Amino acid sequence: MAALKVLEGGSVLEKAAANISVVAGVLSPERAQAMSSRGRDAIDPAGGQAYSAAAMSLVFHSAHPRIPTLRADVRLFEVEGQMWYGGGCDLTPFYPHEADFAEFHAYWKAACDKYDASLYPEFKAWCDRYFYIPARKEHRGVGGLFFDDVDASASSYDVEQFVRDVGDGILPSWEGIVQRRREQAFSEAQRQWQLLRRGRYLEFNLLYDRGVKFGLDGGRVESIMVSAPPLIAWKYNVQPEEGSEEAKLVDLLRTPCDWA
Amino acid sequence: MAALKVLEGGSVLEKAAANISVVAGVLSPERAQAMSSRGRDAIDPAGGQAYSAAAMSLVFHSAHPRIPTLRADVRLFEVEGQMWYGGGCDLTPFYPHEADFAEFHAYWKAACDKYDASLYPEFKAWCDRYFYIPARKEHRGVGGLFFDDVDASASSYDVEQFVRDVGDGILPSWEGIVQRRREQAFSEAQRQWQLLRRGRYLEFNLLYDRGVKFGLDGGRVESIMVSAPPLIAWKYNVQPEEGSEEAKLVDLLRTPCDWA
Repeated sequence: MAALKVLEGGSVLEKAAANISVVAGVLSPERAQAMSSRGRDAIDPAGGQAYSAAAMSLVFHSAHPRIPTLRADVRLFEVEGQMWYGGGCDLTPFYPHEADFAEFHAYWKAACDKYDASLYPEFKAWCDRYFYIPARKEHRGVGGLFFDDVDASASSYDVEQFVRDVGDGILPSWEGIVQRRREQAFSEAQRQWQLLRRGRYLEFNLLYDRGVKFGLDGGRVESIMVSAPPLIAWKYNVQPEEGSEEAKLVDLLRTPCDWA
Repeated sequence: MAALKVLEGGSVLEKAAANISVVAGVLSPERAQAMSSRGRDAIDPAGGQAYSAAAMSLVFHSAHPRIPTLRADVRLFEVEGQMWYGGGCDLTPFYPHEADFAEFHAYWKAACDKYDASLYPEFKAWCDRYFYIPARKEHRGVGGLFFDDVDASASSYDVEQFVRDVGDGILPSWEGIVQRRREQAFSEAQRQWQLLRRGRYLEFNLLYDRGVKFGLDGGRVESIMVSAPPLIAWKYNVQPEEGSEEAKLVDLLRTPCDWA
């Protein structure tokens, strides 16, 4: 079962995609090998085991340059009764509204701390590592949470309920920012900056994202590329003016910050 | 020595980049291994040999949807007095003006035939193979020439003079099309189609192009990404109307044609 819903041209959401898939099959040797090498001990690297998997992913590209792009997902993978969970939620902003980022991270820290105080620091750092563009020496955004390969049977907290909370928290974690920013005026120059910065989002997806490579090899090109921003501009070597908001944003993305 | 010139916002060339580099160095084991495995017998796969290299590359993104994107390069690589040449010139159109493509290919066939009747068929087929997007089952454009690893000492024709002719032929091969199309009116819908199709250009560059991956690993991110189209739109699952010019273009890109 797979369902993809796309909204294009909204006044707040210039493009939004929600993808849900529930699948079952038999592990190929290549995939089994890759998963086994990532520490999923119950998976025979030779392949051949039956699996089932479920995933929900969201990407919201805002029309407003002061509202960050939101990306999130939750996912579950099962082999012979053993469950591994993954997911995350992160922001890719265009302007350095630090109070917004602190609020977003505080939301996710509280959601994690309900289960275990070690979760937020671990998953926040994982997000910073994952959404990184080596060629630019820049993080894609200001992060959030990212986790994968979480073994439910080897965890001291209720992983399933935690992942349900992550799914339920995606919209509330972002909504305050949207409501606060959506009526602010913005200039054509700020819109252009948003279009330029969106290029980084695509660079990361096409050059580095493991999920994108896997999906394209599987032939699902349109349901993978649906995550692309609706409009992107590319100019050569744009350097924001020293001391500007744009320069501050770029500076923020060089080194992960302790937001929460 | 490296020189990069970029024009942005021209009335015919919405974005154009010309990149010239002349470099010398010592081969790393990784690079020596890769080149040796591609048949450059004089290269010691262990690395350590001195090399020199020169390259000129061009990309012209037209403002007009009826003028194809032009990409071209010529390059030379030397180790211990042995020379290998590469280069090419190809079109990525938005509309199926078959007479334009035939004219372009006829130009390059004549340029090749002056040296050897085997060159055009070989380099045309190489171009079709190289500029291919497996995830889309589409060629990026209508091709032209592409060649690499041509060993001057093992060739029966004057390879250096041939490559000079390729460099000198880039603008003449395209100019007729530009002059014929630049004054034609176009609609906003045709412009939108151009922005959507430009996405394919970037998909190829970021997902598949060997030169891009090599350049990004080398840290030259802005001089690599300068080849990106100036403005790109991404919509979900756009299917052109049956029988339309847009549908015909997509159909043309499925299977290489004998244009010359």
